[in-house]
Amino acid sequence: MKKVAIIMGSDSDLPTVEKAFDVLNEYGVPFEAHVFSAHRTPLQAKEFSENARKNGFGAIIAAAGMAAHLAGAIAANTTLPVIGIPISSKAFGGMDALLSTVQMPSGIPVATVAVDGAANSAWLAMEIIAVSDDALAEKLTQARAANAEKVLKKDRDLNEKLK
Amino acid sequence: MKKVAIIMGSDSDLPTVEKAFDVLNEYGVPFEAHVFSAHRTPLQAKEFSENARKNGFGAIIAAAGMAAHLAGAIAANTTLPVIGIPISSKAFGGMDALLSTVQMPSGIPVATVAVDGAANSAWLAMEIIAVSDDALAEKLTQARAANAEKVLKKDRDLNEKLK
Amino acid sequence: MKKVAIIMGSDSDLPTVEKAFDVLNEYGVPFEAHVFSAHRTPLQAKEFSENARKNGFGAIIAAAGMAAHLAGAIAANTTLPVIGIPISSKAFGGMDALLSTVQMPSGIPVATVAVDGAANSAWLAMEIIAVSDDALAEKLTQARAANAEKVLKKDRDLNEKLK
Amino acid sequence: MKKVAIIMGSDSDLPTVEKAFDVLNEYGVPFEAHVFSAHRTPLQAKEFSENARKNGFGAIIAAAGMAAHLAGAIAANTTLPVIGIPISSKAFGGMDALLSTVQMPSGIPVATVAVDGAANSAWLAMEIIAVSDDALAEKLTQARAANAEKVLKKDRDLNEKLK
Amino acid sequence: MKKVAIIMGSDSDLPTVEKAFDVLNEYGVPFEAHVFSAHRTPLQAKEFSENARKNGFGAIIAAAGMAAHLAGAIAANTTLPVIGIPISSKAFGGMDALLSTVQMPSGIPVATVAVDGAANSAWLAMEIIAVSDDALAEKLTQARAANAEKVLKKDRDLNEKLK
Amino acid sequence: MKKVAIIMGSDSDLPTVEKAFDVLNEYGVPFEAHVFSAHRTPLQAKEFSENARKNGFGAIIAAAGMAAHLAGAIAANTTLPVIGIPISSKAFGGMDALLSTVQMPSGIPVATVAVDGAANSAWLAMEIIAVSDDALAEKLTQARAANAEKVLKKDRDLNEKLK
Amino acid sequence: MKKVAIIMGSDSDLPTVEKAFDVLNEYGVPFEAHVFSAHRTPLQAKEFSENARKNGFGAIIAAAGMAAHLAGAIAANTTLPVIGIPISSKAFGGMDALLSTVQMPSGIPVATVAVDGAANSAWLAMEIIAVSDDALAEKLTQARAANAEKVLKKDRDLNEKLK
Amino acid sequence: MKKVAIIMGSDSDLPTVEKAFDVLNEYGVPFEAHVFSAHRTPLQAKEFSENARKNGFGAIIAAAGMAAHLAGAIAANTTLPVIGIPISSKAFGGMDALLSTVQMPSGIPVATVAVDGAANSAWLAMEIIAVSDDALAEKLTQARAANAEKVLKKDRDLNEKLK
Repeated sequence: MKKVAIIMGSDSDLPTVEKAFDVLNEYGVPFEAHVFSAHRTPLQAKEFSENARKNGFGAIIAAAGMAAHLAGAIAANTTLPVIGIPISSKAFGGMDALLSTVQMPSGIPVATVAVDGAANSAWLAMEIIAVSDDALAEKLTQARAANAEKVLKKDRDLNEKLK
Repeated sequence: MKKVAIIMGSDSDLPTVEKAFDVLNEYGVPFEAHVFSAHRTPLQAKEFSENARKNGFGAIIAAAGMAAHLAGAIAANTTLPVIGIPISSKAFGGMDALLSTVQMPSGIPVATVAVDGAANSAWLAMEIIAVSDDALAEKLTQARAANAEKVLKKDRDLNEKLK
Repeated sequence: MKKVAIIMGSDSDLPTVEKAFDVLNEYGVPFEAHVFSAHRTPLQAKEFSENARKNGFGAIIAAAGMAAHLAGAIAANTTLPVIGIPISSKAFGGMDALLSTVQMPSGIPVATVAVDGAANSAWLAMEIIAVSDDALAEKLTQARAANAEKVLKKDRDLNEKLK
Repeated sequence: MKKVAIIMGSDSDLPTVEKAFDVLNEYGVPFEAHVFSAHRTPLQAKEFSENARKNGFGAIIAAAGMAAHLAGAIAANTTLPVIGIPISSKAFGGMDALLSTVQMPSGIPVATVAVDGAANSAWLAMEIIAVSDDALAEKLTQARAANAEKVLKKDRDLNEKLK
Repeated sequence: MKKVAIIMGSDSDLPTVEKAFDVLNEYGVPFEAHVFSAHRTPLQAKEFSENARKNGFGAIIAAAGMAAHLAGAIAANTTLPVIGIPISSKAFGGMDALLSTVQMPSGIPVATVAVDGAANSAWLAMEIIAVSDDALAEKLTQARAANAEKVLKKDRDLNEKLK
Repeated sequence: MKKVAIIMGSDSDLPTVEKAFDVLNEYGVPFEAHVFSAHRTPLQAKEFSENARKNGFGAIIAAAGMAAHLAGAIAANTTLPVIGIPISSKAFGGMDALLSTVQMPSGIPVATVAVDGAANSAWLAMEIIAVSDDALAEKLTQARAANAEKVLKKDRDLNEKLK
Repeated sequence: MKKVAIIMGSDSDLPTVEKAFDVLNEYGVPFEAHVFSAHRTPLQAKEFSENARKNGFGAIIAAAGMAAHLAGAIAANTTLPVIGIPISSKAFGGMDALLSTVQMPSGIPVATVAVDGAANSAWLAMEIIAVSDDALAEKLTQARAANAEKVLKKDRDLNEKLK
Repeated sequence: MKKVAIIMGSDSDLPTVEKAFDVLNEYGVPFEAHVFSAHRTPLQAKEFSENARKNGFGAIIAAAGMAAHLAGAIAANTTLPVIGIPISSKAFGGMDALLSTVQMPSGIPVATVAVDGAANSAWLAMEIIAVSDDALAEKLTQARAANAEKVLKKDRDLNEKLK
């Protein structure tokens, strides 16, 4: 199976990003995680990205806050799909990271998910790999049904409570 | 080759969305386009989405403005990767469509590109299909080189002009 | 008397939404509450909305945060008045939910109240039902007078304190 | 049938508000329109609002821009449902009018529609009146079907064009 | 001496507004405070405003949050200078109250100060009264000098500390 | 009668600011206008402000765009009431000038009016002078009545048209 | 004299950036201009930046719009001062480029000027070079005096006109 | 070596600004710090700025919040490079201070860093001084390498942990 790479710009992003680890682990999708900075270790970020396809990756998740250049810097060095997680910070609630991640110029897209949306970055990575992996696609379909059932249970619980 | 679906919420989005047609046509990626409204023709949107994978699609692009629910409504009915293009409108320059598209809840991701970023929606769709299509991946690598050369030429032109 | 339906996108919205329960209970307006997700249980949301009028409802309140599609998804399936409560979340203080709720396309309105404005969603639902229910209209008029008296008492208390 | 009142804060809002006239006229819903200013003719606004219910109105639409106090000032003087249309202006694209209209305190709701959303204010007013008017409710259901058909036709046109 | 009126929309604004009391007390400027709601006790707000000039007031301060209509509602009923304090609230940090207060239509100005800027509302009220009150003007000049001295002392303290 | 000073940061602000000239001229309030820059001619701005009270001014209006420091720089050098007009510019629709003008620190207030609100700056200046000038106060009361009549006429015109 | 480098992310930025050329030409400061893209020609941007100090540059100006990563990408490869010009674009008036440019992580600063502030980027570059170049510092002092005189003349012109 | 001046508008900014002290101390760059207010002690701010170049300063850092005029007021009185730190405050997360600092008019630039970006203000000041100070330039290059090494270590730590 194709692997997922998860790159974060700072180890302070780890508590947010770990939700992506959890989702991938739950569905048995292999991943590798790194701390690479677009500005402090640009060479490592570049080298990893350039070789990601041939190293068996199918998608790269990049998480960064503030002037979040990481996802774009990775996307500049690979034609694999790059998923950006804008990380919230104190001043602007993540608007800075969101705009820095999503407003990419033509030809170098970043597939942006919600601010701090690490779980969804993993779901999106799995959907991308599942395009050519029927077993994973089947798992995703089942996950949807399971998630729907959880909501239905909450609805029943609420109605029990309101009786 | 997997096909790309391009859904727009209104035919007034067509002038923006056509840039996606151009990119896909240039690289020979087959696509199908539809006008489906999340609110006015929800059944058609749902039915298309539910059958997209078995009908040979590898990614679905959804373009909508204002309270842009279309991409999310499609994502709710497929586990294929759904790419959202927030369409700008007069009042908020596309901030309404951007937030309505990108801030999706866990489990139902939308891969959001820039406001009015139709070209990048096509590039991202091609990157997703190319994960398991080496010929397309090779084309994308060549496209990057060609685009770089265009920038280099602009740099030479500028320096010629400034002499 | 027509009933009010209160739908929330997640049970985490319950502490906010309960203020609507309180208002409706105080004025004796019957209601039913559900947890339906626009994206995880779209079928249940659709089915409930399609049948709401014939099941005796006069207004539907829908509460959701982030890319808050719930009120719009319900409005797409009923011609009853749908009232949207944008729920605040950490990143943007509710601006994402507000814009996703209020910026609806022509023909499918959502009557939007303030961010986290659950009490006002109930007041608005009662005003809607009272259009053809004189007894409830009379209660609302009396409630206004009672609320005015509360403000007048606070004014008197302040002036007592400042003496 | 209950009438709809349409109040605008300035006659410069008329080109936007006229879309509400068109919708109401199309469905045969009687309405009355006024130019009342929350700040320049507050007495007239107050008097109209206080008497609206007994004068046969079922909903009041109020349109205003900038520090849009009109809908709130009307809502303070009636328990009829008040629908607010935030009118866009140059400086902030309507954000000032949107927040001034929607962020109402508890007990005095304003049912806010999209910036410049005059058509939807009329649709919402009709939905409110239709709660107790089955003939109008039936017309609204038919309108939804007709609007869906228009979108389906646009979809067919697009596919014809793309062939 | 002309008096200052301080009106707040809710007694929950009192902790913020009390800073205005402190400034006026420190400089011996008489004031009166009230809790009036633009929407719940509009009559009292109107009556107070209409009579404020003949009752010896020289300026009216109005504090309100969210859709802060209070200052405008008061300004509509007097030609005394009305000073607006936008009160911050959770969702938008006071942007809603700021825009609702400052963006007034021509002819009905509100002199807006910073979000939660109660102290400055009092300083501005004193400046307005001092236009025709030389003794107060002299006090304000001395206050400026005293405030400058406080800053200079902080500068000296910092330099002492950094030695 | 006290005079009004109108300072603008650049002569490009003149087309906006001239509306203040018109209002003051209509009501016979004497004024003087200057182009002073907080950053390019700070000495002239300072000197004018320091002497404004003794030179017979009762209020100073300051208009500036972008990082609009002018009103604050003037307020730092006088205890006369300073009225700030935030001038809109292309990038942020005047939000930069609004925040730079209104968010003043304690002790140095700027009475801020709407973005590009030159007419209201003149109305506010007149209200300030009228606190101790009964003849001007009477004129302002009459102006309010005249403005109300204009709105009432527009209401009659609209109803004539809709018949 | 140290040279200034002016890098733009796209030749579409040239009409804005040319104002920097004009300022530098007027004061005889040598400069070199390039079109380098952070994402399309990252190698050229990197190589230029790494060698800029030894090639005689004293400051690098970088102009880019949308997710404006260029200034940061250059700053990551040099310890020369890097000046960022956020270029405005349609959707967000330059807020995206401003936040992407200014919100840099610790250790890699970008000296950000106003949106589209090309002239100021040149003034700042000259101020940086003038720290160790007394002749240029003297020119800058004279330029300030000349600019002040221009404002004073506009003030005289306005007063002539208003007589 | 040229000295750095660090001016803050209030001693409440000290906890944020001290990070600049730490960076300068670590690299042995001499600095002087002051509390000067653009509005309360404008004379001291002006005098310091006018004499800063001849007193041996190479850059001036100015930190202020809300309507942050301090950096601009200093820049108006010197042709040394002025670096602005926008200080965050409760209402707008620093957006007010950012726009007040960065949106300077042509001819008077302020080199703006991130909201609360005191460390980067120091890094930028050092880069400016290092333009003509090869020893400091060399130190900065080494600091970059050391910072890169810290990120690499965090990457190794993460991978150790994930094994």
